[in-house]
Amino acid sequence: MLDEGAKGVYVIAVTPFLPDGAVDMASTDRMVDFYLDAGATGLTVLGIMGEAPKLTEAESTAFVRRIVARVAGRVPVIVGVSAPGFAQMAGLAKSVMDCGAAGVMIAPPGHLRTDDQIVGYYHQAVEFIGDAPFVVQDFPLVTGVQMSVPVITRIVRDLPTCVCLKHEDWPGLEKIGALRKEGALNRRISILCGNGGVFLPEEMARGADGAMTGFAYPEMMVSVVKNHLNGTPDRGRDLFDAYLPLARFEQQPGLGLAIRKHVLMKRGVIAHATQRRPGAALSAAGVAEVELLMGRLERRLAELG
Amino acid sequence: MLDEGAKGVYVIAVTPFLPDGAVDMASTDRMVDFYLDAGATGLTVLGIMGEAPKLTEAESTAFVRRIVARVAGRVPVIVGVSAPGFAQMAGLAKSVMDCGAAGVMIAPPGHLRTDDQIVGYYHQAVEFIGDAPFVVQDFPLVTGVQMSVPVITRIVRDLPTCVCLKHEDWPGLEKIGALRKEGALNRRISILCGNGGVFLPEEMARGADGAMTGFAYPEMMVSVVKNHLNGTPDRGRDLFDAYLPLARFEQQPGLGLAIRKHVLMKRGVIAHATQRRPGAALSAAGVAEVELLMGRLERRLAELG
Amino acid sequence: MLDEGAKGVYVIAVTPFLPDGAVDMASTDRMVDFYLDAGATGLTVLGIMGEAPKLTEAESTAFVRRIVARVAGRVPVIVGVSAPGFAQMAGLAKSVMDCGAAGVMIAPPGHLRTDDQIVGYYHQAVEFIGDAPFVVQDFPLVTGVQMSVPVITRIVRDLPTCVCLKHEDWPGLEKIGALRKEGALNRRISILCGNGGVFLPEEMARGADGAMTGFAYPEMMVSVVKNHLNGTPDRGRDLFDAYLPLARFEQQPGLGLAIRKHVLMKRGVIAHATQRRPGAALSAAGVAEVELLMGRLERRLAELG
Amino acid sequence: MLDEGAKGVYVIAVTPFLPDGAVDMASTDRMVDFYLDAGATGLTVLGIMGEAPKLTEAESTAFVRRIVARVAGRVPVIVGVSAPGFAQMAGLAKSVMDCGAAGVMIAPPGHLRTDDQIVGYYHQAVEFIGDAPFVVQDFPLVTGVQMSVPVITRIVRDLPTCVCLKHEDWPGLEKIGALRKEGALNRRISILCGNGGVFLPEEMARGADGAMTGFAYPEMMVSVVKNHLNGTPDRGRDLFDAYLPLARFEQQPGLGLAIRKHVLMKRGVIAHATQRRPGAALSAAGVAEVELLMGRLERRLAELG
Repeated sequence: MLDEGAKGVYVIAVTPFLPDGAVDMASTDRMVDFYLDAGATGLTVLGIMGEAPKLTEAESTAFVRRIVARVAGRVPVIVGVSAPGFAQMAGLAKSVMDCGAAGVMIAPPGHLRTDDQIVGYYHQAVEFIGDAPFVVQDFPLVTGVQMSVPVITRIVRDLPTCVCLKHEDWPGLEKIGALRKEGALNRRISILCGNGGVFLPEEMARGADGAMTGFAYPEMMVSVVKNHLNGTPDRGRDLFDAYLPLARFEQQPGLGLAIRKHVLMKRGVIAHATQRRPGAALSAAGVAEVELLMGRLERRLAELG
Repeated sequence: MLDEGAKGVYVIAVTPFLPDGAVDMASTDRMVDFYLDAGATGLTVLGIMGEAPKLTEAESTAFVRRIVARVAGRVPVIVGVSAPGFAQMAGLAKSVMDCGAAGVMIAPPGHLRTDDQIVGYYHQAVEFIGDAPFVVQDFPLVTGVQMSVPVITRIVRDLPTCVCLKHEDWPGLEKIGALRKEGALNRRISILCGNGGVFLPEEMARGADGAMTGFAYPEMMVSVVKNHLNGTPDRGRDLFDAYLPLARFEQQPGLGLAIRKHVLMKRGVIAHATQRRPGAALSAAGVAEVELLMGRLERRLAELG
Repeated sequence: MLDEGAKGVYVIAVTPFLPDGAVDMASTDRMVDFYLDAGATGLTVLGIMGEAPKLTEAESTAFVRRIVARVAGRVPVIVGVSAPGFAQMAGLAKSVMDCGAAGVMIAPPGHLRTDDQIVGYYHQAVEFIGDAPFVVQDFPLVTGVQMSVPVITRIVRDLPTCVCLKHEDWPGLEKIGALRKEGALNRRISILCGNGGVFLPEEMARGADGAMTGFAYPEMMVSVVKNHLNGTPDRGRDLFDAYLPLARFEQQPGLGLAIRKHVLMKRGVIAHATQRRPGAALSAAGVAEVELLMGRLERRLAELG
Repeated sequence: MLDEGAKGVYVIAVTPFLPDGAVDMASTDRMVDFYLDAGATGLTVLGIMGEAPKLTEAESTAFVRRIVARVAGRVPVIVGVSAPGFAQMAGLAKSVMDCGAAGVMIAPPGHLRTDDQIVGYYHQAVEFIGDAPFVVQDFPLVTGVQMSVPVITRIVRDLPTCVCLKHEDWPGLEKIGALRKEGALNRRISILCGNGGVFLPEEMARGADGAMTGFAYPEMMVSVVKNHLNGTPDRGRDLFDAYLPLARFEQQPGLGLAIRKHVLMKRGVIAHATQRRPGAALSAAGVAEVELLMGRLERRLAELG
């Protein structure tokens, strides 16, 4: 079970598809092995970048079952269960927890505005998901919902099964600092950061416990976190800087997943870069840009030794 | 099958629930009879006001099956199949058409902005729903998507299975006029109007074919449409004016469904006003307001004879 | 000076223009007289429906000066000073208070989301407008900002110069009730309601002090408020119902001002219905609809005696 | 006068303030010299990052006059004239063109949605600004308005005074490609890119003419553009990569300007990092992060030679 002590790198997994749009289970297995070999301390599946809303309930459950089987208990698996209604959320949460998931992740629906509305939403969600540990996804750029520090404080205080914040606000460094201040929360929860890792060195310095995002080179995130914990943050930053041109490129809203899947395909992780529709495809020029950046990365890593 | 000639009043049906949140099938049957007795020429179920996103796939299908069985071919049944992803939409569309639905309704997802994005979305949707006739739902206040006349023109021209516009733009009378202008569309489609009926006399005068909305007194809408077609629009307006204080009250965003369900309960149509969560409940003061308006309506109708 | 005791009908004045787009000062005088003759207990100028953002600073000041001169102390004049930046707001507030305004009105800018952001905004605004009494404009449909009861509570508690809430939330009746509950606010402030008056009977019943909106028949609002205070709310509702078909028609977002100005022109109040661009004009069909409704209103009023 | 041939780096200038909030004219002069010494081929003032809406009309004009005087004809000066109403836009455009500006920049207001609405808005704007050459600002992340390629095509075709696109869409590389395709536009206009320069190498490769953004190290942007034109893009990318950790940090929405002003202050360009309110200040931790990145940049530049 996921708990407040979660740290390291929880990779946001993509959902691999075959060219005809079916879920690619062979690639799924290979992807699990790749992420764990890279040092992932957890996996998060069916997040926004996991194309969750494009899957039927049956497909979602089958995909989670396959992931959990391949992981075979080595790391916790978190599953996104955000849904337009609580009946769907409850159904999915029950089914994935029964499959062996370690917790669920819930993003707030876009119509929430006031502090009370947001806190109220999580109260209701917990009535539906029961005692499953959950991650609050704080990603205003995509959800449109802004969760202030007082809102997170209330959620953490009121709902003991809230164990982790997937932090992806922008700008968000001050928010980490505020949440880590003595007495801000009534108990320490895990803070894992998103945004494709492009602020990870600073996030760690402010008190994050690691990353929960899907940059196609998870080894970068593993290194930054490890070097931070080892007291060699500068070495972590050197590596971070080497990967940054690609990480920045992958962070383009609307195109990031196409880039990420292309890199994973080039690295031999998944067989196809296919996204289910609607999904932006990479043009020939886009492919050339990504591959140029991959080449430059290799050279820079060689320089760094 | 729904076609371009659809006219009259397609009532947007509520989804009745028992106090414990289960779908109330007995009330569902009674509701079908009530709507048809009131003169409905069609039913539209699982729309936004039908709490569609709060139902699981299995519940949606069971509800549609029950409705279709009770209707027993007397009028066409349209089913809302808007979904966050096309896989879900395709699954639901197939299942409800197999159950005997006459067509489906699709609202655009809120992230669409440009003309090309909106037109492209409907192109993709049609690839997934096949040859099911469909209604375009144009409801910017709720969806956030603004469909201009050129966009609707392109959808109608490109996609022959588009047979009806559920018109609910605001202000929208000019849009009806523009779409009805000689040559605006390459073929005439049905235009049925929403907004709880509060602009129905003007909409009919501009060229609409009727209403597709769920005001708890469908007989008002039936009268307005009938009087318009009979050349006695003023008589229709007299009735409309009598119902308007209640219709306006029901049109409060965020509370409309609670009011609508309360009226239907008071009228003996459904057993409970229960909404699935999240859903705004009516306070005691709200109940008193609705019932005061119901009383005034009766008196005014008596005056009108 | 405006204070917490404000009640009655504060008409939101239009800004009359000549066909060439210049401010029409002769119509301005006539409009002031019309509103006061109709029983207005205050005027609010340069609100959203006053086309405020279309005026230069110099024009705004000249318009306010003219209004104040014509009013000649008979009723308080409130001036909208919402602006993209505080420097502009401060300049306008100073200049209109110097002209003799009784207070200012401030709508929150659309990017505010969290409770703290909204409260913080009003704190900052007060630093810029000094001790001018102010009205908080709560109009989510247009501003996009949702102010919960706790937010209004904090603003009222923290900022003693906040004397009035222009209430225009939707649905908003519960909010009035909550703010009027014993102990909800640390002091009673005035609540004046917007939305073109279409919920005025219910708003008064919930504890509002009157209306602050610009329906082109202010006499309706004056009657509803007076009948409510006189203990004859049903007589007020009878009149309200008579005006409702027009009030509803005027409430169409995006077209309301065109309708309002057309009615005021037909009633001889302003010389031209001209709006400054960008502004939606009424089509011939729209004009016919408005005039049909004006005719029906006259007949209904005659019936009511 | 700005024309379709504009290329190089048009730096988006900050507006320097004294600690008391007054415009800092001495820093303004120093900033102009700094930007031109760094190789700027133009300046753009009173953009979104120039805190334009926080200035009064009089302040805006005085600031532009000072800038133009200091530039003394060495490069063109573009002035942002976006305003909530056309009267204000027209006034500001006239006043700055009279001062010697070479053109104006116009961002679309946030309520525009459909293609026709956006094109219509620029048509109207041109009626108000007359024959001043103008830049279309395409920045959906901040304005909320998405301009498709067909929209830009229409603006360029219809309005001959449109000479430049400030491109800042996200993802936007395909858009540059589409606009540069043979025959996409009826005439070639300048495309200068924003986003703090973080996609500049790719933007140049796709056909941009340079940058129009305000990264606090304009020399980076000058190098990337120059190396691109000289056929040594890889050398440009090496420099770009060195600056990227800082450029990325500056690109945090909501905090970018605080970072930019802090760097400019540390570099001796402006005397104070003060922003007019409302404006996010940098915390002590934020200052430390920026300065750590400045130190690392220096070391990396030394390595690169």
